Amino acid sequence: MSAGSTARARPLAGRKPFLTAAGAPLTREIAILDEFGERRGIHIPAERPLTVYVDKRELVTLMTLGASPELLVLGYLLNQRLIASADEIDAITVDWEVEAAAVQTRGGIGDIDARTARRIVTTGCGQGTVFGDLLTALDAVRLPGAQAARIRQGTLHGLLEVVRQQNSIHRKAGSVHGCALFRGAEMLMFIEDVGRHNAIDTIAGWMALNGVEGADKVFYTTGRLTSEMVMKSAQMGVPIIVSRNGVTAMGYDMASKLGMTLFGRASNRHFLCYTGFERFDAEPEPQRAPVRVVAGG
Amino acid sequence: MSAGSTARARPLAGRKPFLTAAGAPLTREIAILDEFGERRGIHIPAERPLTVYVDKRELVTLMTLGASPELLVLGYLLNQRLIASADEIDAITVDWEVEAAAVQTRGGIGDIDARTARRIVTTGCGQGTVFGDLLTALDAVRLPGAQAARIRQGTLHGLLEVVRQQNSIHRKAGSVHGCALFRGAEMLMFIEDVGRHNAIDTIAGWMALNGVEGADKVFYTTGRLTSEMVMKSAQMGVPIIVSRNGVTAMGYDMASKLGMTLFGRASNRHFLCYTGFERFDAEPEPQRAPVRVVAGG
Repeated sequence: MSAGSTARARPLAGRKPFLTAAGAPLTREIAILDEFGERRGIHIPAERPLTVYVDKRELVTLMTLGASPELLVLGYLLNQRLIASADEIDAITVDWEVEAAAVQTRGGIGDIDARTARRIVTTGCGQGTVFGDLLTALDAVRLPGAQAARIRQGTLHGLLEVVRQQNSIHRKAGSVHGCALFRGAEMLMFIEDVGRHNAIDTIAGWMALNGVEGADKVFYTTGRLTSEMVMKSAQMGVPIIVSRNGVTAMGYDMASKLGMTLFGRASNRHFLCYTGFERFDAEPEPQRAPVRVVAGG
Repeated sequence: MSAGSTARARPLAGRKPFLTAAGAPLTREIAILDEFGERRGIHIPAERPLTVYVDKRELVTLMTLGASPELLVLGYLLNQRLIASADEIDAITVDWEVEAAAVQTRGGIGDIDARTARRIVTTGCGQGTVFGDLLTALDAVRLPGAQAARIRQGTLHGLLEVVRQQNSIHRKAGSVHGCALFRGAEMLMFIEDVGRHNAIDTIAGWMALNGVEGADKVFYTTGRLTSEMVMKSAQMGVPIIVSRNGVTAMGYDMASKLGMTLFGRASNRHFLCYTGFERFDAEPEPQRAPVRVVAGG
């Protein structure tokens, strides 16, 4: 499995897996009562159980917004290291009628019982699940060096401006997390989900399906930089992460250990670089200003 | 297990379980680089793996801030319905040196393999884990009716003011979620953790240890009202939940089904009542004002 994090960067050797394009409404309107005694409608994000069957065997049930369930399932299998490449998948068929995703592999997933046996509950905002061999698999991660993968302050500002202008479910209904993949300040992929781990998994699925390299990309998330998010970005081969939110101690430690660069509290023209300063070019020359008090969150 | 959610409301039949009081630093200072090119120190929350052993058998590894690991473990076992009452626990011994919590039960946990076998990944902000029998167990939940458990708008304002004034890790270091248990506007218990599911589990542990009823309480969380948070609050017998954040569709549906009352976007004097209006008394008479545009999040 040590090829897992790099295999996905290759263009697919075989033909692409067949994916359905199962659609479903992404928001719902509910009637609320506000603090002024007014009754009115607001939108909330949809949230659906999606039970994943691999070669007719039930693996897991994911709760998702449902924006891109096929890529979510593909990315989930990759990020859980149950597969090393999209090549291993023949088809992913999602049917919302039965809230199921049927995954057909080309050669089966060896030793699946053993590899899904150990349960580690990670932070996320909640209690994320990562199967046991994932942490050890980090040793296999290879990221480009600081000279090969860098980011300029001007590029970071541009990236944040693109994020700010992005039309989103969050803007309409709140309560979702967004993730995006950037090349410089160019947004290649944007996805939202009720779970931010789903969002990053979906991006991993998109990268794998399209043979997109991680080395020259920047991963953006609205969520906290937890160990799990850092780990998944590393597996995807993306060395630079930008978050609107903060960092947890394990996310910070893992990124430092892996030589990744983390930006947090990033919105508009503000940000903190937590670690991996060596990939960052403070150009154009940042304007000096009194140090801001950074709000928690 | 059908007594699970109510058994915990009883004062303990036997003696209280023995709990250690393992302490650990809750924040760390790291050196960051900000957008003005300034290097300075900020605080981030600690995050530690805590592997839970039940009668010497490894159950799960939780990632936690570490503020109250013994109550976290107790509440985790309760909210996962692996035990129905704190009576079943003889001792919980946490040792940060080895990052382990040793749980000694009085009679063992029957059928533990089967009951921890099925994996459901719920939303949280991430991919929370709930063992399979939990969802079905909701049928056993009994909550007080709308006449028995109500909340006044004035009380809600008072509660939010107490939250606003609470000194917190979040204020110092960000990136943690806070949960609190209220009787009216009186805060009985406040806890923060890197995972908000840990925080609610810790409150469940505290309630169980002290035989605290849920029926006349209000549960506050800084996190989103996901199905998992609603489910846990219901198991704890608490019918009213207040969140600074929003609601997901499954959290909304579950609360509606259970006859719970959900308030979201609640801070200062603002809030939305999503469902369970019948428990809410808009008194003192809310001042009329133009309807606010509610920001997402």
